[in-house]
Amino acid sequence: MYRSHTCGELNLKNQGQTVTLSGWVQNLREFGKLTFLDLRDRYGITQVVFNAEENQALYEKAHELGREFVVQVTGLVKERENKNLNIPTGEIEIIASEFSILNSSEIPPFTIIDDTDGSEELRMRYRYLDIRRNPLKDKLIFRHKVAQLFRQYLSQEGFIEVETPVLIKSTPEGARDFVVPSRVNPGQFFALPQSPQTFKQLLMVGGLDKYFQIVKCFRDEDLRADRQPEFTQVDCEMSFVEQEDILQVFELATKFIVKETKGIDLGTFPRMTYEHAMNTYGNDKPDIRFGMEFCELNELVKGKDFAIFDSAELVVGIKVEGASEWTRKQIDEWTDYVKTPQVGATGLIWAKYNLDGTLTSSVNKFYSEEDLKKWSEKFKAKAGDLMLILAGEAKKVRPQLSALRMAIAEKLGLRKADEFAPLWVVDFPLLDWDEESGRYHAMHHPFTAPKPEDQALLETDPLKVRANAYDLVLNGNEVAGGSVRIYDKNLQSKMFNLLGFSQEEAEAQFGFLMNAFKFGAPPHAGIAFGFDRFVSILGGSETIRDYIAFPKNNSARDIMIDAPSRLDDKQLDELALKVITNR
Amino acid sequence: MYRSHTCGELNLKNQGQTVTLSGWVQNLREFGKLTFLDLRDRYGITQVVFNAEENQALYEKAHELGREFVVQVTGLVKERENKNLNIPTGEIEIIASEFSILNSSEIPPFTIIDDTDGSEELRMRYRYLDIRRNPLKDKLIFRHKVAQLFRQYLSQEGFIEVETPVLIKSTPEGARDFVVPSRVNPGQFFALPQSPQTFKQLLMVGGLDKYFQIVKCFRDEDLRADRQPEFTQVDCEMSFVEQEDILQVFELATKFIVKETKGIDLGTFPRMTYEHAMNTYGNDKPDIRFGMEFCELNELVKGKDFAIFDSAELVVGIKVEGASEWTRKQIDEWTDYVKTPQVGATGLIWAKYNLDGTLTSSVNKFYSEEDLKKWSEKFKAKAGDLMLILAGEAKKVRPQLSALRMAIAEKLGLRKADEFAPLWVVDFPLLDWDEESGRYHAMHHPFTAPKPEDQALLETDPLKVRANAYDLVLNGNEVAGGSVRIYDKNLQSKMFNLLGFSQEEAEAQFGFLMNAFKFGAPPHAGIAFGFDRFVSILGGSETIRDYIAFPKNNSARDIMIDAPSRLDDKQLDELALKVITNR
Repeated sequence: MYRSHTCGELNLKNQGQTVTLSGWVQNLREFGKLTFLDLRDRYGITQVVFNAEENQALYEKAHELGREFVVQVTGLVKERENKNLNIPTGEIEIIASEFSILNSSEIPPFTIIDDTDGSEELRMRYRYLDIRRNPLKDKLIFRHKVAQLFRQYLSQEGFIEVETPVLIKSTPEGARDFVVPSRVNPGQFFALPQSPQTFKQLLMVGGLDKYFQIVKCFRDEDLRADRQPEFTQVDCEMSFVEQEDILQVFELATKFIVKETKGIDLGTFPRMTYEHAMNTYGNDKPDIRFGMEFCELNELVKGKDFAIFDSAELVVGIKVEGASEWTRKQIDEWTDYVKTPQVGATGLIWAKYNLDGTLTSSVNKFYSEEDLKKWSEKFKAKAGDLMLILAGEAKKVRPQLSALRMAIAEKLGLRKADEFAPLWVVDFPLLDWDEESGRYHAMHHPFTAPKPEDQALLETDPLKVRANAYDLVLNGNEVAGGSVRIYDKNLQSKMFNLLGFSQEEAEAQFGFLMNAFKFGAPPHAGIAFGFDRFVSILGGSETIRDYIAFPKNNSARDIMIDAPSRLDDKQLDELALKVITNR
Repeated sequence: MYRSHTCGELNLKNQGQTVTLSGWVQNLREFGKLTFLDLRDRYGITQVVFNAEENQALYEKAHELGREFVVQVTGLVKERENKNLNIPTGEIEIIASEFSILNSSEIPPFTIIDDTDGSEELRMRYRYLDIRRNPLKDKLIFRHKVAQLFRQYLSQEGFIEVETPVLIKSTPEGARDFVVPSRVNPGQFFALPQSPQTFKQLLMVGGLDKYFQIVKCFRDEDLRADRQPEFTQVDCEMSFVEQEDILQVFELATKFIVKETKGIDLGTFPRMTYEHAMNTYGNDKPDIRFGMEFCELNELVKGKDFAIFDSAELVVGIKVEGASEWTRKQIDEWTDYVKTPQVGATGLIWAKYNLDGTLTSSVNKFYSEEDLKKWSEKFKAKAGDLMLILAGEAKKVRPQLSALRMAIAEKLGLRKADEFAPLWVVDFPLLDWDEESGRYHAMHHPFTAPKPEDQALLETDPLKVRANAYDLVLNGNEVAGGSVRIYDKNLQSKMFNLLGFSQEEAEAQFGFLMNAFKFGAPPHAGIAFGFDRFVSILGGSETIRDYIAFPKNNSARDIMIDAPSRLDDKQLDELALKVITNR
């Protein structure tokens, strides 16, 4: 028996007991003839005392200890003189009567404390040491808790967790697959799933009307910051349901989890169409913890000889409340921001509704105070507010203004980590047009059903067709997305055709699904939560890496284990593969 | 809204209600002016009646229906005249007032009934139809339930489920890895985990002292019947524990699951050393639902001029109670059985303790009735029993006799699917000797700790070293296995050395673990349940395929989706790979 208690549970009630603890040396302090050892495990820290006057040999042996040594200590629980009321064990200490060193430790490359000195690179290389720190450990435990709650809720609602295969079939459509060569079938490959989409639809055809799975998915993308090649989804599907059923079930699931983990009652989630979100926030995943909705000025600003506005498809701005006092320098910084390549605007126009009631702007030459007054009415601005305006092509200027809105909110502290603003975005377009390939792309995926009332437009104006597709947005992040699926084989066939699949391609890639649809597919719909993202936002962070035990870095490498790596020639040979080196 | 109720819940209490059901056409029957439709969903079957006298149009429309059509029906719940008390809904029927065909169906390739006419091949190709059948559907739901219970129990015990990576590093040691080429790092590969072994040990180094994960693992083996290239483990690890702690925690977990799912209290699990299991059952995973323990006869049979026994290293038999009346033909069948190539014995000796008290044998020429009397005493045989005896090299004859024991038990119905006999097998050897490669192999894996009391033997007689390794056996199947781990870097290093790793190889493959051991690794131990096998045995079957939603066939192919398959040249090119075709 290595321990009778953990390092997080002893208190005054245990006074007088002889206990055994095991853990790591957090800290050692000398005070004359006393050595104080802070012993740490997953559950907390307990102070251990070695007293030279009581046990000289033990006291001396304690000098062999160093930080992160693994130690087993036996001793008497005693009330402390100098109590530390910040920790649960702070009223007691252990007077050591025995101890043994279970393992030694080299000096760790960074300190195992909440605010560590280690760089992210260093901490990823020694991830197992980083996990000893409370912040990371607590995040992993939080993730576990959220997963448990999800499973508990869905199971109670009659959902069945079904494991779908990981070794599946590659489909050139969509993002790039990771592939797995088959040794037994030389020259053939499995793919790792980007999602269990087709399998969950087959389960619906199979009559399992409520499915879920918390499941690893894989996407071989060129990495952007905070994207992982392997990620976790809470994947769900239901039969004999409409969009409304899905929204209700998963709104309740989300409310349950937030209530259980954060103690917050989220209330009914607002809903917004895709079109409204794009027009009002320039973004299909608006952060609605704060205002700064878009205000379109086209009808007020045209024809005043200001070429930039006159030539613009869209003139649109946001109002920053109480910011009329911002200095020229402050506004210039935002102008510089919108001109950065990642935002890509050419300039920023401002207008102030000053506290004294006057109105001024960066385009005074073209617009009178009376003009500005009309602007401010459109903005519903009041004295003290600042209006920031961008102009240009609508589909460029909206994301630019969205970026500005988010950056200002971030700066002003309006994106509060402990405030949660969920939102359903609905009525996404079914298709968009990809200039590069000169063909339609499915906005969600090729299995998404058009709205019945828009179905006729598929023939005449496909881009106008809205889908029964929906996203759950939380604090400006898409945390879940889904759709009502096509379950009619003819409509599915038409869809593949519209997306530029030849009959042969559709058959080769999705023949099994089309075939399944011949045998009585029920109406069905589903949703998938991006679990890494969902957990990190609930945890108050937008860095998903912190919520993954062993993440890859931004080059898709695991720098701790040093993977990927080269194979033996023998392994390659067995797989009938040759690496091409002279590309 | 597609339905107000499911097809499994209506009964006399719902009489007079107007309800809407959705489901599949199980069956259609005509009786004069009435059409009876059995409507099926996941929850059951409800009888729907179309009455020509009440609604001629609807009655006629019902003739469009065929088996497996998807239908929505609205109607009144009425008490049935001919009640079917075998099903929960059998006292009522729905008098249809409205219905619509949600989807049609071609005639399915096999009938969707419990005892279907489909071959296994056909049912795997149309797995989504097979899942509509109760036997398969119920097994998937049972699997879900066992997974939920496992998670519930371990979470309550303070275990944290941590997701470890799927894209890891290939290690030539052990079974073959599936590998994943990295596009971003041309010529380099990830491997899919055979188990999260090293990661869970790193989590222990990271201070998370109770870890579990229900996780997919992968092994590129030449398939044997009922092995899957991807399989699921309940993977567990604990810190500051000894073997005894692990056995207790996971015995309780297993008891909990069996109690909750089967209502059976298993009691305390017996324990047996590896040596005892091998000597008594010829097998390290004995089925102890029945007896037929091995009885060694060496000291009784030698020196009687029977060359086969005289030259044998081991003469060993089993007693079949009440089988003395077996005919010559029956015994010959077992002789043929032990001579099959998969068993590989050269012959079978028998001796009967006849009901009249006489003793006879197939070796009467060499052994007198008095000799046979002594045998029967050793066997503790009584009148009416049959003794079956094999002779030869010990390490061959034990598995042969084990096979015979199992086959006879199967034939006699002693392997009862609803009886559960758990058993801990402990004290496995640390190493065995691989003739082919001429070196030691780790019996469990290279991270398993030798028993401290045997550690000195590592230098002098490594094959004598016992490990702190253990298996949980259930009904003759290994359902879980684990060990106490090495946590000392020097011992781990010595172990790699003993297993024939050069320092460089050990460093290249397991450097990250050796490195982690420098920073205060705690004592730790773990276990992993083969979840597919565990669930299938609990479910009363030994066919794991039935408990996997979408299994691969015996050639490691998914014949439903037709995977693996060839890649586009473009995909291969991006991966810097070429398939070698002229091998």
